[in-house]
Amino acid sequence: MPERNIKLILAYDGSNYHGWQRQKNGVTIQEVVEEKLARMLGEAVAVIASGRTDAGVHALNQVGNFKTTTSLDTSIVQKGLNALLPEDIRILDAEEVPLSFNARYSARKKRYRYHIFNREVPNVFLRRTAWHIPQPLDSESMRRCLVSIEGTRDFSSFRAAGSSNRNPVRMILSTDLRVEETGLLTIELEADGFLRHMVRNIVGTLVSAGRGKLTVEGFEAVLNAGDRRAAGATAPARGLFLVDVSY
Amino acid sequence: MPERNIKLILAYDGSNYHGWQRQKNGVTIQEVVEEKLARMLGEAVAVIASGRTDAGVHALNQVGNFKTTTSLDTSIVQKGLNALLPEDIRILDAEEVPLSFNARYSARKKRYRYHIFNREVPNVFLRRTAWHIPQPLDSESMRRCLVSIEGTRDFSSFRAAGSSNRNPVRMILSTDLRVEETGLLTIELEADGFLRHMVRNIVGTLVSAGRGKLTVEGFEAVLNAGDRRAAGATAPARGLFLVDVSY
Repeated sequence: MPERNIKLILAYDGSNYHGWQRQKNGVTIQEVVEEKLARMLGEAVAVIASGRTDAGVHALNQVGNFKTTTSLDTSIVQKGLNALLPEDIRILDAEEVPLSFNARYSARKKRYRYHIFNREVPNVFLRRTAWHIPQPLDSESMRRCLVSIEGTRDFSSFRAAGSSNRNPVRMILSTDLRVEETGLLTIELEADGFLRHMVRNIVGTLVSAGRGKLTVEGFEAVLNAGDRRAAGATAPARGLFLVDVSY
Repeated sequence: MPERNIKLILAYDGSNYHGWQRQKNGVTIQEVVEEKLARMLGEAVAVIASGRTDAGVHALNQVGNFKTTTSLDTSIVQKGLNALLPEDIRILDAEEVPLSFNARYSARKKRYRYHIFNREVPNVFLRRTAWHIPQPLDSESMRRCLVSIEGTRDFSSFRAAGSSNRNPVRMILSTDLRVEETGLLTIELEADGFLRHMVRNIVGTLVSAGRGKLTVEGFEAVLNAGDRRAAGATAPARGLFLVDVSY
């Protein structure tokens, strides 16, 4: 059988998973998807994602690919997988791509979104998908800080502590911060790539600025310090969504 | 101690409850709220709501009231209750009202909202709060049907089978149907009151029209028939929200 390469677009509610990547200590999305694919196709399958998402992080359009010798139509692969998967993981699309396509290495840019619910009383419908902050936030100050990170920069200050052996330079292509009347504050970042915990560390530090604990100049100083200890706390995973990946 | 009357605004995710009203076969929101209030106030308390919501139905601003001899500030009642309640029930406000106020009998109008997610693949984030309908819906036809129920009418066709001893006439004050690019279709109804299952039966019949199984004239014929058997299926509880109650 000739080998085929199938690209998947996946959405998941990460609340009940230990992230994308297989690990010993909990159920992961990769493991569940690979297990259902293997059951359907009758062969072991390895799914490569555009990147790992951490425990509790969600995805609107995660991209993955896997090599297979199946002759099944991609629409059957999609429907079959959706019939087998739990309802918090859905395959939004499946299509055949050239064998050279690799969801991780072919990715050119990614977009992440972060939800903060900024009212005194938490929203019962956002408890798994937003960070609840009861104190008032100065969204204008947060927006000015956010804009200051656009461009190509060293993001050492915003990467996970202990992750030191990769290039810390990333290019932020666009940012956005919106506030809705409902109290939902949405932060969006598009970049050529992200370091581990980078969005959550940026959001945590933006929130320090929003609470008046850091000026815009202070925020820029954190960025320029190139030192994780300069930044604010890591925002909780539950507010973070991988929105999409461009190739 | 003088008796006081305290009005509560409650939001709840109804997914894990057997509706508002106390019953033998499952945990209800009324029971949980009354139990936490009793624990906090040290006296038995009966909470009257604007109306029962069925199992699985949600509320954005349900209104309730209870009589008490406590001298606690209403803000303390609110904060204390929120500290005791599970995170799928929140007290959005608590205020003292005249003893004559009754959340049920003083209600003048109510607004309900219904969410349909109308894409082939379900949305993982709306699985507890929307009805997933994969087939295309003709929203224009649904909107025309919806408008036709405005005004004062006999809603016998849309009330729960078997509930026959109440006045079936209600006045629909306004209706709205919106479609978002994301695939979310929202139906809203405001009326001086609703019969049991009325919104869910209207939505079920609107969906028959949206799927081309019923014309606008057919929909009006169902309404005019005054017979529950003429209408479509009852829409699932999980898409329904009590939005607010006016007094």
